[in-house]
Amino acid sequence: MIVIELSERQLKIIEIVKENEPITSEQIAQFLKVTRATLRPDLAILTMSGMLDARPKVGYLYSGNNTVSIISEHVKRTKVSEIKSMPVVVDEQTTLYDALVSLFLEDVGSIYVLSHGYLAGVISRKDFLKNIMGGTDIHKMPVGLIMTRMPNIVTTYPHETALEAAIKIIEHEVDSLPVVEKFEEKGKEYFKVVGKVSKTNITRLFVELGRQK
Amino acid sequence: MIVIELSERQLKIIEIVKENEPITSEQIAQFLKVTRATLRPDLAILTMSGMLDARPKVGYLYSGNNTVSIISEHVKRTKVSEIKSMPVVVDEQTTLYDALVSLFLEDVGSIYVLSHGYLAGVISRKDFLKNIMGGTDIHKMPVGLIMTRMPNIVTTYPHETALEAAIKIIEHEVDSLPVVEKFEEKGKEYFKVVGKVSKTNITRLFVELGRQK
Repeated sequence: MIVIELSERQLKIIEIVKENEPITSEQIAQFLKVTRATLRPDLAILTMSGMLDARPKVGYLYSGNNTVSIISEHVKRTKVSEIKSMPVVVDEQTTLYDALVSLFLEDVGSIYVLSHGYLAGVISRKDFLKNIMGGTDIHKMPVGLIMTRMPNIVTTYPHETALEAAIKIIEHEVDSLPVVEKFEEKGKEYFKVVGKVSKTNITRLFVELGRQK
Repeated sequence: MIVIELSERQLKIIEIVKENEPITSEQIAQFLKVTRATLRPDLAILTMSGMLDARPKVGYLYSGNNTVSIISEHVKRTKVSEIKSMPVVVDEQTTLYDALVSLFLEDVGSIYVLSHGYLAGVISRKDFLKNIMGGTDIHKMPVGLIMTRMPNIVTTYPHETALEAAIKIIEHEVDSLPVVEKFEEKGKEYFKVVGKVSKTNITRLFVELGRQK
């Protein structure tokens, strides 16, 4: 997929077709005082992009389709594995206070809780605040008792696209997704945490894409 | 600006030029067993997009420029005013506890603090947690004493682009920006809060753009 800045003449052609449709390439050439051969590449671009319709024996028509796809293959090909961050993980027995210390040291919004090395839960800034407001003793309470538990955690995989991850974040109203790899043992599924994708990663990707030329 | 999906033949032309540059359109036509006239629109698209260079009396060269701009006018034109959310505001005298209640009721990550109706400070989930960990009594402490104060707040304006706002969020490592309008009185500047742009708004915009066909 490529992106092309329309030339003055191409924009003019669109205007001419809009006002005179259907119109033949010969008539457009007359309007612009150029030869049909000169116009051929312009008309090819405008029909390929879907801005004009070309009907045999009728001529060119304006498709009305001026909002065109803006997401390139580049965006569609950006994978979770390319934008993920390091996850911060703690054990189920960790107290809320110690988990909060990790949260601040690593400056993250969510912490993943592991049990025997596999994803067991997630705890966010919001969860901490909710419990503190409810009067929980952060020095005694282990994260395992207040975390959101599997299977109620929305996850993503390294091979998913950044777009798929962003859709999950918005639809499930979460701040981040653990990036996991699935293992099966005796018919049970286990998830290893290999990263994290948050709104920060998506915003950073948006900036990178926007800054390209 | 328009986006075009390259055809099989166009991709083939790129390969041929890559391996045989410099190469004339006549030679490319021979490779593909088509006429030069047939190739003209393809070559026009490939040179206009900057993927091929056309040098008079030399032929076509591969520009090496296969990462092309992916951000359309649509993205560049999206304004902060189009994506902003409602801000949640409290007064300087509000206690941390009452501010936290607003935070949860409105389900936001940051609250803006007003003084005489103008932006005076901002307080985030992280600020709340930091103070709670430090032993602050949330039922007594007013937000005015712990908030980040103007002029240390990164702001955005309704007419700025979503991209500019996203860049500020990433570069200043903040979760959201108050959208403000500036007023001047007796040589002093005041800012009215008219909205909020957070990583959530940017992620939602990314999803909207990505979902467009």
